[in-house]
Amino acid sequence: MPMMMNKVKNAMSNLVGGMMPHGHHHHHNHHSGGGQTCGPDSLPPRFPYGRPDFLDLSPELLQYSTEHASRPVLTLKRGSRLPWQTGYAEVINAGKSMLNEDQASCEKVFVRKPSGKHRIPLHFWGVFDGHAGSGAAIMASKLLHRLIRDRLGEICHLLENPGSAPPICLAKNGSPYQAESKKGKVVSLESLVMGVIETAFKQMDDLIEKEKASYAISGGCCALAAIHLMGKLYVANAGDSRAIIIRNNEVIPMTNEFTPESERQRLQYLGFLRPELLGNEFTHIEFPRRIQHSELGKKMLYRDHTMTGWAYKTIVEDDLKFPLIYGEGKKARVMATIGVTRGLGDHDLKVYNSNIYIKPFLSCVPEVKVYNLDENKHGPDDVLVMGTDGLWDVTTDREVADAVSAYLSCCDPSDPMRYTLAAQDLLMRSRGVLKERGWRLPNEKLGSGDDITVFIVPLVGHESET
Amino acid sequence: MPMMMNKVKNAMSNLVGGMMPHGHHHHHNHHSGGGQTCGPDSLPPRFPYGRPDFLDLSPELLQYSTEHASRPVLTLKRGSRLPWQTGYAEVINAGKSMLNEDQASCEKVFVRKPSGKHRIPLHFWGVFDGHAGSGAAIMASKLLHRLIRDRLGEICHLLENPGSAPPICLAKNGSPYQAESKKGKVVSLESLVMGVIETAFKQMDDLIEKEKASYAISGGCCALAAIHLMGKLYVANAGDSRAIIIRNNEVIPMTNEFTPESERQRLQYLGFLRPELLGNEFTHIEFPRRIQHSELGKKMLYRDHTMTGWAYKTIVEDDLKFPLIYGEGKKARVMATIGVTRGLGDHDLKVYNSNIYIKPFLSCVPEVKVYNLDENKHGPDDVLVMGTDGLWDVTTDREVADAVSAYLSCCDPSDPMRYTLAAQDLLMRSRGVLKERGWRLPNEKLGSGDDITVFIVPLVGHESET
Repeated sequence: MPMMMNKVKNAMSNLVGGMMPHGHHHHHNHHSGGGQTCGPDSLPPRFPYGRPDFLDLSPELLQYSTEHASRPVLTLKRGSRLPWQTGYAEVINAGKSMLNEDQASCEKVFVRKPSGKHRIPLHFWGVFDGHAGSGAAIMASKLLHRLIRDRLGEICHLLENPGSAPPICLAKNGSPYQAESKKGKVVSLESLVMGVIETAFKQMDDLIEKEKASYAISGGCCALAAIHLMGKLYVANAGDSRAIIIRNNEVIPMTNEFTPESERQRLQYLGFLRPELLGNEFTHIEFPRRIQHSELGKKMLYRDHTMTGWAYKTIVEDDLKFPLIYGEGKKARVMATIGVTRGLGDHDLKVYNSNIYIKPFLSCVPEVKVYNLDENKHGPDDVLVMGTDGLWDVTTDREVADAVSAYLSCCDPSDPMRYTLAAQDLLMRSRGVLKERGWRLPNEKLGSGDDITVFIVPLVGHESET
Repeated sequence: MPMMMNKVKNAMSNLVGGMMPHGHHHHHNHHSGGGQTCGPDSLPPRFPYGRPDFLDLSPELLQYSTEHASRPVLTLKRGSRLPWQTGYAEVINAGKSMLNEDQASCEKVFVRKPSGKHRIPLHFWGVFDGHAGSGAAIMASKLLHRLIRDRLGEICHLLENPGSAPPICLAKNGSPYQAESKKGKVVSLESLVMGVIETAFKQMDDLIEKEKASYAISGGCCALAAIHLMGKLYVANAGDSRAIIIRNNEVIPMTNEFTPESERQRLQYLGFLRPELLGNEFTHIEFPRRIQHSELGKKMLYRDHTMTGWAYKTIVEDDLKFPLIYGEGKKARVMATIGVTRGLGDHDLKVYNSNIYIKPFLSCVPEVKVYNLDENKHGPDDVLVMGTDGLWDVTTDREVADAVSAYLSCCDPSDPMRYTLAAQDLLMRSRGVLKERGWRLPNEKLGSGDDITVFIVPLVGHESET
């Protein structure tokens, strides 16, 4: 604990001085070694550590926000406004890392041609759950929406003609080009926007890797983004954050989580096709528990990349290697190192005490789902809820929907703070209160000790906004 | 056409003599070359060509069944009985191959320990849609249920104790083995049965490959199997056949189809990780149409294995290669060769006029879904419908459910032929009748010209059968 306190003090002095401390506790890491994911100490941070700009924290409040003992809930100040009256709340973890490694962004920007004067509004909400440091999460929260905006700008002339399908081929200057009147697959404008978001995530990941040469950008992050463009809500998720739409108290899931368990077969397939990535230390086959040397020749349950069920196999020498995927539920890990399988950053992340990189297994590709805002009617209590895993670990979709609906129905519909207050209420339900035996929920179950970040975005009144 | 008639005559003489003719028309092949998928002509067939044993066809009827001009519908004879009063009907294609390349099996067998006297009944229904010959489909229809039965026999002592979870480790003699009281993942008996089915498909595929050394086993086949064991129905699908449960006129889908479109990303990922499998002829990137040499340097819509949406890329030399996945809907093909992506056999199948094998992209792994028969109540009109793609190409799930429900509700509930009559009715709806402009449905749309095979399995009365 004294060690820990010293670290916190050092971090604080760096923090107030605008320095970004390196993460020393790996959110998802079995091993406490840490540090191997940080850039050289001599490099400056790409962006200084801080909380989202829209919170407008003073240095005193910034320091106050990091108190693990009290875990103060930060919300948007009364008087501050986010686009769409978005509600926001956040809280730091119970001590597993010095700083809150979650980040968030909420922006209204305009898509425009490099030379054009016509512009299309774009709303963006992003939630970034960092691990092994704050660097990647901060960088993504500052830049991802800009990358999406800029890429959309390149196809702005196509967005301006939503009635016609995008041309299959463009000339070098970007104008539609028809060789002969060849037929081909008809691609919708919607899937072009999805492609922009997918490629922007890749670009963001590449940028983190590239700028690591000049800056200290620590760790990696799960990324969850919602983009509103021309009447549609695009929700892109890479990691274990989650978004749901609550409409008329019904839950519409907008994301799937990407974890070692949900992506087992993809990872095993990669390990099977490229065994060199496993560094002779891991086996792509899954077993229900570690195998002992004395069990050679016996039969054990296993699953490979082709199987959903289990079967018995005779244990051979190679099966004694550590399984690529191991552990259950929240404790499942890829190569004993990381508990999520999609996200940004982590380019330097290696298996502890080895030369085996995690990154080829970690994917930066988001899954994008589309919700047609214009084609649905919404009331003032219909919202999009976006939260990091700290929220969902202890509160189910249904419980979140019931809590939000109950809270909003008791709130003055004209209070601009109602969505922030609902976010605060939601967050308290997952954090709980500090008792003798730790953070506890009203039912005495353990509250989340993780960083928690929540956006509540009202859907009413934006159906035809352009 | 004279060529064709000669082929038919030769096939017929072989057929009546018990020889299996080689397929000369590749169901899913763009190219008419054919023949490259057959074993040496000198080898005997593994099993002679025929229709399912339970149809009990005379040689005359067997020959009659192959008439493309009239396409007679074959059903179970009145007096014949299949387990569970299963209904069955089949019809040959409109001329695309000489023989009906579909096969079917329906068996009641017993799972037992090699030495034990206790035995567990198992019901099996299989539908096999062959292409490029009948060999693989016939072999699978004769053997797949036996492989499943035998593999279940190896774990028979575990099935006899359905109350306790299967042990993680077994001694060499197969008896449960506990090293120390180690914890591990708890695996259900159900997922052990799923594992048996998955590994039996693999074993079936390996067996086809192995026996090709001694026998002529032509082509490959989609495989759809339903297995009833201890109160649960396991539906395993590898290919584009389909099964649905109709319960109270509601549709419960029991399969997904595996086609170049539905499996695009899996195939592209394999081509990306193992480019040598594309033989310098194909690109793993998808484009909406073929690219011309003159379009080098321009921008074209594309999707790679990471994308669901589309984006523009600058065309380079490598993009001029033929796309790994090309075509839309029923015309989509893997490497311009085959229209399904899962199935058994096809070990010799190559891209026309090349040395590129299709098999690494074609997977023999089924997707297994489980329906708990014991936990649901069923009426006499509640059924499992299994059919090859010929059925579903022209009739939707909803139309099938409506047709079956309407037919059965007008049938004498005590008539043992009712499910066969319903299958016959269903099949007629997809085949249509021969008019001047080909096989037509009542709404004048084109009927299916494909082989069609249908099982209708009643679910009532078997809920607690053991």
